[in-house]
Amino acid sequence: MPEMQMPTARTRVVREPDRAVYDREAVYQILDEGFLCHVGFVADGQPFVIPTSYGREGASLYLHGSAASRMLRQMREGVPVCITVTLLDGLLLVRSVFNHSMNYRSVVILGKAALVEDPKEKLAGLRALSEHILPGRWDQARQPSERELKVTSVLRVPIEEFSAKVRTGPPVDDADDYSFPTWAGVIPLEMKAGAPIDDQRLEPGRAVPEYVKNYSRKG
Amino acid sequence: MPEMQMPTARTRVVREPDRAVYDREAVYQILDEGFLCHVGFVADGQPFVIPTSYGREGASLYLHGSAASRMLRQMREGVPVCITVTLLDGLLLVRSVFNHSMNYRSVVILGKAALVEDPKEKLAGLRALSEHILPGRWDQARQPSERELKVTSVLRVPIEEFSAKVRTGPPVDDADDYSFPTWAGVIPLEMKAGAPIDDQRLEPGRAVPEYVKNYSRKG
Repeated sequence: MPEMQMPTARTRVVREPDRAVYDREAVYQILDEGFLCHVGFVADGQPFVIPTSYGREGASLYLHGSAASRMLRQMREGVPVCITVTLLDGLLLVRSVFNHSMNYRSVVILGKAALVEDPKEKLAGLRALSEHILPGRWDQARQPSERELKVTSVLRVPIEEFSAKVRTGPPVDDADDYSFPTWAGVIPLEMKAGAPIDDQRLEPGRAVPEYVKNYSRKG
Repeated sequence: MPEMQMPTARTRVVREPDRAVYDREAVYQILDEGFLCHVGFVADGQPFVIPTSYGREGASLYLHGSAASRMLRQMREGVPVCITVTLLDGLLLVRSVFNHSMNYRSVVILGKAALVEDPKEKLAGLRALSEHILPGRWDQARQPSERELKVTSVLRVPIEEFSAKVRTGPPVDDADDYSFPTWAGVIPLEMKAGAPIDDQRLEPGRAVPEYVKNYSRKG
């Protein structure tokens, strides 16, 4: 498939264009650190934004859910969607209220979702989702049954039309403000995993696996 | 203003209705723990989903941004928007791939945004945004100038038509799966603040304030 020239008129970052990122590998890095996206679609003229998990396999994003879900039924009709992934990295405190800001990395993907009908790709898509969220887990869990696969829909969204916006680095004040008497700096923010909690019905002797013990989204 | 009966047909939770929350106070609690929302709006038939911060003041959500921003210019035309706030609380690992899940709390608000024109409400909206993200900061920073207020737009979205979806508690497996030989339990997830980092140009002797030192989103 010939690659689209990035950005398109629809994905070009207008505000703070110095924060724009159109590089595919840089976008993949953001997508791979996150696993929660917000999916936008339109029904009866009303936009809806729904959080859901995703996996990435090459230039495809996979979403899944109940075959009965309103969102998935809408999406597989081939309506335009917007998938947004946002990572928050910190609060930037400066001297002026006005220049307070945040460090973040966000990706916006425009496109259409397609229902994955091929059973092999469907299973691979589910595996990609699982391994994206928690690498190592798929092979350690009971595999999906025919019935479970039947009630699950998998959608593929091509990563074709996209852009990212990234704000990084120290806070910045107007030259005149540096002498204003207040603290300035960064409060770093990160999605962190706490200590794993055993299921109350866990059989004795089942140790916490390594992929759970050291869970982190940083690459 | 007479209160809308919740849920409406558009905000009723269809999938997993036992996870639905329509109680206003419970929804406020979720909104108050978060400060990042994803705003959905439609332009030329294409949905867009953009991350931005928000503040809450009673039954109003305030958003802000550059008066030149594409999103804000769209929104202040009174187009329908969807504002979604999602808090991730944990990964649920069970025996079957199929029953893996997450604990989360999410709020969806449908409505229309209005540009705040009254200077007093505009300043109050900006203060609400600032105090929502970082309580105590507003009074410690240099106040907005006339010029800064002019290039900033503030929008108000009424919290009228909304619903929340909440998944909490331990993981659940099918009865037959409990003997499957794998670890099961919860990986708790939380947006956490790291140690504050002084701005490189901080004047000597400016200590990190309490509201920065103990920054946490938990109420």
